[in-house]
Amino acid sequence: MIEGMPLAVPGVRLASVAAGIKSSGADDLVLIEMEEGTHCAAVFTRNAFCAAPVTVAREHLHACANKPRYLLINAGNANAGTGRAGVRAAQACVEAVAVATDVDVVRVLPFSTGVIGEPLPVPLITAALASALSALTPEGWAGAAHGILTTDTRAKTHSVAFRCDGRDYVVTGMAKGAGMIRPDMATMLAYLATDAAVETTVLQQLLDHCKERSFNRITIDGDTSTNDACVLLATGAAGNELLSNPELPLYPALCAAVEDVCTVLAQAIVRDGEGASKFVTVQITGGRSEDECLTVAFTIAHSPLVKTALFASDPNWGRILAAIGRAGLPDLQVEAVTLYLNDVLIAEYGGRAEAYTEAQGAAAMATDDITIRVALGRGDAHATVWTTDLSYDYVRINAEYRT
Amino acid sequence: MIEGMPLAVPGVRLASVAAGIKSSGADDLVLIEMEEGTHCAAVFTRNAFCAAPVTVAREHLHACANKPRYLLINAGNANAGTGRAGVRAAQACVEAVAVATDVDVVRVLPFSTGVIGEPLPVPLITAALASALSALTPEGWAGAAHGILTTDTRAKTHSVAFRCDGRDYVVTGMAKGAGMIRPDMATMLAYLATDAAVETTVLQQLLDHCKERSFNRITIDGDTSTNDACVLLATGAAGNELLSNPELPLYPALCAAVEDVCTVLAQAIVRDGEGASKFVTVQITGGRSEDECLTVAFTIAHSPLVKTALFASDPNWGRILAAIGRAGLPDLQVEAVTLYLNDVLIAEYGGRAEAYTEAQGAAAMATDDITIRVALGRGDAHATVWTTDLSYDYVRINAEYRT
Repeated sequence: MIEGMPLAVPGVRLASVAAGIKSSGADDLVLIEMEEGTHCAAVFTRNAFCAAPVTVAREHLHACANKPRYLLINAGNANAGTGRAGVRAAQACVEAVAVATDVDVVRVLPFSTGVIGEPLPVPLITAALASALSALTPEGWAGAAHGILTTDTRAKTHSVAFRCDGRDYVVTGMAKGAGMIRPDMATMLAYLATDAAVETTVLQQLLDHCKERSFNRITIDGDTSTNDACVLLATGAAGNELLSNPELPLYPALCAAVEDVCTVLAQAIVRDGEGASKFVTVQITGGRSEDECLTVAFTIAHSPLVKTALFASDPNWGRILAAIGRAGLPDLQVEAVTLYLNDVLIAEYGGRAEAYTEAQGAAAMATDDITIRVALGRGDAHATVWTTDLSYDYVRINAEYRT
Repeated sequence: MIEGMPLAVPGVRLASVAAGIKSSGADDLVLIEMEEGTHCAAVFTRNAFCAAPVTVAREHLHACANKPRYLLINAGNANAGTGRAGVRAAQACVEAVAVATDVDVVRVLPFSTGVIGEPLPVPLITAALASALSALTPEGWAGAAHGILTTDTRAKTHSVAFRCDGRDYVVTGMAKGAGMIRPDMATMLAYLATDAAVETTVLQQLLDHCKERSFNRITIDGDTSTNDACVLLATGAAGNELLSNPELPLYPALCAAVEDVCTVLAQAIVRDGEGASKFVTVQITGGRSEDECLTVAFTIAHSPLVKTALFASDPNWGRILAAIGRAGLPDLQVEAVTLYLNDVLIAEYGGRAEAYTEAQGAAAMATDDITIRVALGRGDAHATVWTTDLSYDYVRINAEYRT
């Protein structure tokens, strides 16, 4: 595992330019080029009002048999809620890439993030394509990670290098948040690439596994975006024999690397959540099923009262118990439930633990990273989600978002 | 229907005193006395972590065959999350009432609201009982409505007088909010009384009907309380023959009056919601079932992004579409969905309506009372819920709640 700058992935080149969509003048258009033969897996939002680029990207990915050559990503405008005109706008952008690069249009996938409901400024995007094409470089990850941001305050990238059967591989990814984050399939936008050669269905199986344990375990505000997308590219530049069987040793090694990159990126989205001042791990154990553990975890993570208490560093554990109690678990025995803040035992037998003192709770809440641990005492299942607090700044950012 | 001061209900006397539970010195203890023969229906929170007084009140109501003589309500301390010690504390309080009034202890029901997790100050409550008993008066509704408040900024009462079969009746109610409001059975605390004589099972049926269309249709923050309770008393002082059959004309007349009082009180709780600056009606039509209409309505009403846009008076309708889209309705055809803000058509055919202008949306959002109307275009069912915005003040109130 490598800290610091993201590692280049042989077979992938990236460029980030300012097309003028963001009024700030910051980079807002990213182009990713994959070499011929790259396999692609992707997951998209399950929001019924999915954005126009999601519709087009899904169709194109299918039409090109999961072998796209270009990803075109703009920030500052989500091209969502724009109806049929939005679909035509997304198509016009990828058509311009196809013409400039002489590839079939279905081998270009569009992605957008930003304000919902505004027409996509197609001329700005097509006018910036030439400079994006000439700026493509294998070292472009860090720049591209900046170019896809909206209300995020920092770029999010991560790389893992590993060796399997005597061959070296790399996995690099980037992602952006930072509001409307409760991924139901993938996060807002995340792009990962590896130089391993992986057959498409195996690649999709691997991505499905990894996103379920990373991006689908985070929430900032419970609002699932219209534009969520997560893409995993496998260029094959490492030269291995095409991985077409998950029983081979490369599969678990690659899976671990991809899950690691996904988890680091997902947690980075939470740490950079709108107005976030705390990073909160909600860990549920002792459930009858993973599903009921997730239900309890997300009920706690979405509770405005728990989130405002976290913001205030107030160990108001009664609000956590209240959230557990309203999560709708059948036959929940409150006497069996145990609650910890970090390592401090707060509540058991339906009430405050006898040895607990407010000073202990206050000390636990004063840390920037907090773990809320709930033992349900009714089974062996467990699940963890990551979230953040609800601060004045969350309200300010979202009240002022379009001004 | 009578505006202004709440009407006395023959057979009911109330008192409100300051027991010293609230550090402000405001009234915090309310006693309600019902004359012999009063029938009582009640609904309580479905939160698994229900408070100690809810446990005791439920048991006592059953043990006294729904004929209690006293309700004892304290504000400032919820006696929730307090385990077995909390149950003993609630029992000690009602035992003191029973001794002072010479009634069986199971004919006294306890209710609490306030901070969760603190021990109930029983001595303060029992010491204040004598002055409460001597202050009982039929005119005590307005004072009692103040005595049960916590973060509420104003008392909430409502009366309806009606005539049926040549006889006059009255229904009066009071309620309090103002956070942890997403009633799953009843609201935080609400007490209604009528002088009609009504048999207990009929009274319960009537209350179940009315709370479903009033208190169970409001949400401030999605957090279902541990202490929700709604009580309906029928003293019989009007002298009518005991209503034991819902087919008789008095049933629909009384039902309409009770539902009216419940709806006015429920809406008053929303208007006084923590940090509320808007009163928002979310009206869903054209659903396949009432349940799916409620799912969409509550998804919109709980969305932090919709709520912060409402606070900012920003007609950010894309967030409303996104909430509809993530509500999980099977086979939702977004092309069939129509969205209005007040009377302004905002979106249709999956995107912005052609004639819509931002100026129209801004004008609609500038009002204090806003109706979000969604036509799903897939059936005949409909449902309405009431909610409010998410403001800086909501965060402030809940961040500072225990300081």
